[in-house]
Amino acid sequence: MRIALAQLNPLVGDLVGNAARLLQASAEAVIEAASGEPLLMVTPELSLWGYPARDLLLRPSLIALQNRLLDQLTSDLQRQAPQVSLLVGIAEPTGSRTVPNLYNALVLVEAGGWRVVYRKQLLPSYDVFDERRYFVAGLAPAVLQWPPAGGLRLGLTICEDLWVDADLAGQRLAGPDPIAELKDAGIDLLLNLSASPFGLGKLVLRRQLATRAAARLGAPVVYVNQVGGNDELVFDGASFLIQPDGALATQLTCCREEVVSLAWPPHGNATAQAVARLEPPDELEQLFRALVLGVADYARKCGFNQALLGLSGGIDSALVAVLAAAALGADQVTTLLLPSPWSSEGSISDATALAQRLGLATQILPIAPLMQAFDHSLAAVLGGAPSGLAAENLQSRIRGTLLMALANQQGQLLLATGNKSELAVGYCTLYGDMNGGLAVIGDLYKTTVFALCAWLDGQAACACRSELGLPPDGELIGAAIRHKPPSAELRPDQKDSDSLPDYAVLDPVLKALIEAHQSPEQLVADGVDPALAERVMGLLRSAEFKRRQAPPVLKVSRRAFGSGWRMPIAAR
Amino acid sequence: MRIALAQLNPLVGDLVGNAARLLQASAEAVIEAASGEPLLMVTPELSLWGYPARDLLLRPSLIALQNRLLDQLTSDLQRQAPQVSLLVGIAEPTGSRTVPNLYNALVLVEAGGWRVVYRKQLLPSYDVFDERRYFVAGLAPAVLQWPPAGGLRLGLTICEDLWVDADLAGQRLAGPDPIAELKDAGIDLLLNLSASPFGLGKLVLRRQLATRAAARLGAPVVYVNQVGGNDELVFDGASFLIQPDGALATQLTCCREEVVSLAWPPHGNATAQAVARLEPPDELEQLFRALVLGVADYARKCGFNQALLGLSGGIDSALVAVLAAAALGADQVTTLLLPSPWSSEGSISDATALAQRLGLATQILPIAPLMQAFDHSLAAVLGGAPSGLAAENLQSRIRGTLLMALANQQGQLLLATGNKSELAVGYCTLYGDMNGGLAVIGDLYKTTVFALCAWLDGQAACACRSELGLPPDGELIGAAIRHKPPSAELRPDQKDSDSLPDYAVLDPVLKALIEAHQSPEQLVADGVDPALAERVMGLLRSAEFKRRQAPPVLKVSRRAFGSGWRMPIAAR
Repeated sequence: MRIALAQLNPLVGDLVGNAARLLQASAEAVIEAASGEPLLMVTPELSLWGYPARDLLLRPSLIALQNRLLDQLTSDLQRQAPQVSLLVGIAEPTGSRTVPNLYNALVLVEAGGWRVVYRKQLLPSYDVFDERRYFVAGLAPAVLQWPPAGGLRLGLTICEDLWVDADLAGQRLAGPDPIAELKDAGIDLLLNLSASPFGLGKLVLRRQLATRAAARLGAPVVYVNQVGGNDELVFDGASFLIQPDGALATQLTCCREEVVSLAWPPHGNATAQAVARLEPPDELEQLFRALVLGVADYARKCGFNQALLGLSGGIDSALVAVLAAAALGADQVTTLLLPSPWSSEGSISDATALAQRLGLATQILPIAPLMQAFDHSLAAVLGGAPSGLAAENLQSRIRGTLLMALANQQGQLLLATGNKSELAVGYCTLYGDMNGGLAVIGDLYKTTVFALCAWLDGQAACACRSELGLPPDGELIGAAIRHKPPSAELRPDQKDSDSLPDYAVLDPVLKALIEAHQSPEQLVADGVDPALAERVMGLLRSAEFKRRQAPPVLKVSRRAFGSGWRMPIAAR
Repeated sequence: MRIALAQLNPLVGDLVGNAARLLQASAEAVIEAASGEPLLMVTPELSLWGYPARDLLLRPSLIALQNRLLDQLTSDLQRQAPQVSLLVGIAEPTGSRTVPNLYNALVLVEAGGWRVVYRKQLLPSYDVFDERRYFVAGLAPAVLQWPPAGGLRLGLTICEDLWVDADLAGQRLAGPDPIAELKDAGIDLLLNLSASPFGLGKLVLRRQLATRAAARLGAPVVYVNQVGGNDELVFDGASFLIQPDGALATQLTCCREEVVSLAWPPHGNATAQAVARLEPPDELEQLFRALVLGVADYARKCGFNQALLGLSGGIDSALVAVLAAAALGADQVTTLLLPSPWSSEGSISDATALAQRLGLATQILPIAPLMQAFDHSLAAVLGGAPSGLAAENLQSRIRGTLLMALANQQGQLLLATGNKSELAVGYCTLYGDMNGGLAVIGDLYKTTVFALCAWLDGQAACACRSELGLPPDGELIGAAIRHKPPSAELRPDQKDSDSLPDYAVLDPVLKALIEAHQSPEQLVADGVDPALAERVMGLLRSAEFKRRQAPPVLKVSRRAFGSGWRMPIAAR
């Protein structure tokens, strides 16, 4: 018999298309099987829907569609791959008249029919997760005997059900311990069907949790994770098989669809190809790949082939340009240089050189004439040209309006280039440089932007760059861009350091306030200057209204701005 | 003895200020009491925090602050109002190491000390509510004996605990029936501490639920609701006392802070003043008052005295101008007319006349010079001026940029003027007319805008207009504005009806799709033209990316765009 890990990239809400992909993956998996050899295909959490389907789960017509698709899948399997048993994630109606009225459930689809075999017990409703909005918790563990006659005892879990070790995960949900329940029941193999978004350090953490469970259960763990970008979340896949002794026997690729079929029990060691992948890639490489996938899938799933961005000559837009080129192909990315009288000479030359290195189309559109035209128009109302922050914001909005005009006219996705440090303290202009369909690096602190760009320009990135179609050799971002002092260039000789602490000082303070919800008092107790702590807290709070109107931010940290950050605006 | 209903308007997250207000309200309530007469003051749900505090509840320092404030409140009461027992809503740590780790709880604060007396059992996590993100459910009903010696048996409930009648409320949460539990326990009086946002029809619904509970329990119900605007939510107060026979004995004001102290048991009928308020105001008047409160509190709680808006001569911006004048005072509201070559003559004359009727400052700033400047700049890149939708969006963004420049320079809150029908189908420009800190009428379908404006111009609105400082007599919006065919005026002779079905046809379809999550197939079964149903569904779906970046929308319907509408963008 065989077990297949189907690391799929669904389109959220496209139940028909996702069901077709499940059938196709079954056909792929069965190629390596002997005729009639039983094969169990394990798919990600809610694989019929894509995760997170959010309020699409409230549509009765989509709920009703599931049964028809499962019936269809049953008869298709019968015809095309009758030896396959398929574990599919669905939203099962509870039948109760109270709300919520769904289970996050698993269905076993076989040639003979389909049936619900498990209901998720631990429903995350923290950070970006809202499962209690849609689902009620299942109340019992489930062991599936497969194949029915004399087969394996399979313990079934869905994503959070595995996250029961607070010492590893940092927290644990109130509720039962599904692993302990399955230990009591006795199983031969634990299956976990997940939709676990990418985050720095998450890949190692998932393996640690699986290793702990494997040791507790004395059984191997098959962990299948969704892959693909869905709005702000990037699912990195990286599914795996871990042996009871903690040995990693199979590791699927990060950030790519893959269907792997394993003979069971797995014989000897992993294949040579698999072993090469067992070491997790460098953390910065993981981050880069996740961001590339996030851009590629957001564009594709929204129907865009091309992207547009403004290049300032600074490091943020340079990084986004590289990510866009890797995601969509250099020939699909257009850049626009929008210099003002306050732009440095380097803003043109550095940006132009970057675009040449990447092979991106570039045009230059000076904004001075529009600045004068706005000053003239506004003077009639204000009695003079706008000044101070209003003038700085105006420049940014002229650029944002030009970029949107081009994106609209040319059918391109505009990418926003701001980083998390800026979004946190409000060092960005609403309706200006915040414009775009996606805030690509909006969850990267400025210091992380520096680190990722240094990695990109180093030897370690060559193979990854080559694989992603970027120029493999030489500097990509370039030392001139990486080493210049950050500046918004919205007034003469402006530097970020005029208004903000150095990013090396600012970023750890932001991280404590945002990701650990610390108070300024706690920061001061940890040695942060009291005036700095209060000031940064004040900036963070008062920029809430801007963030509320920001584009989706690709999440890579423990807490990103977006659906996992739900702060009131009118508050103290 | 006395029972006081404290319908308070807290500032979310300002625990210190809210505690001070609780003390002050206790002092107000005690004025009517005899010396030493026991007085129980009932406050809204989570009254120490303000509702919804959202992710502020995740800050350990604020959780820790509560105990200090409750100690302080205890000693302050001892000194200033020792006869008062105060029921306060807090977020009580569960003490567990699992998450979530708070109860939504009630504390009884008295001169002798404070203690937790109840934990909310039904935690809403639908629509705009996220209580399962923060709270675990209490597991038991609570009856409070007050005063301790031979007093009343008070049944304690918090907001959703009362919403157990699915036939009235349309749905019911999974969980116990707290009213049935209290019936078993036997009580003399039911208290409900609420934070129930305004919605059309909600006032009547709350009374019906309370009437049902009073009948089941054979006991009166004291219902105390929060008042005030908090971001997108407007709490309308309208607290009341209902007798076991369903008679409404006391009705507090809608949309205003009020502390009312009742001798207990309540003697005879309600006071004359109270009786006058027993009939709920006209639904359109309620809607108007709620929107005014929403604007006033958003501005005040964000630190703005002044507002700015663009007047197009159309009905949407006219209504927002009236709301802003009522909320902030006409002298605090500035309007800007931004005509283009495609603007009708009426766009100037009607807008100017409206501003005169309201007494608003008005300036005119034609945008033709900026349109030409942008066309000229963009031609260098596009090879010609932008066309079609790109050109229309550009005009809207020029206006949005001008408005933001003025708002920034003058320290004003920019109000967005789009309606729900537009936001639903994407008939609006991101970074253009969607700009603003608050989308005032973003939850009003166009047909509701017509109805509200007709009401405002009619006799029935005179008293309300007068009370809110608006000109009491004559037309306010004016027939010219109310009766002109809707137009965005972004190209010559454009009408909304060129691109969209009539609003009388469109709005019911939108309502079914948005508020009932119906599918196009269901609409067709109900007699809607199939092409129309599909087309509107497609428009709704493809405008999701715009709504994600919209300002907070004041919620007045069953489902508003904003935190109660969580749709994926990259989806099918």
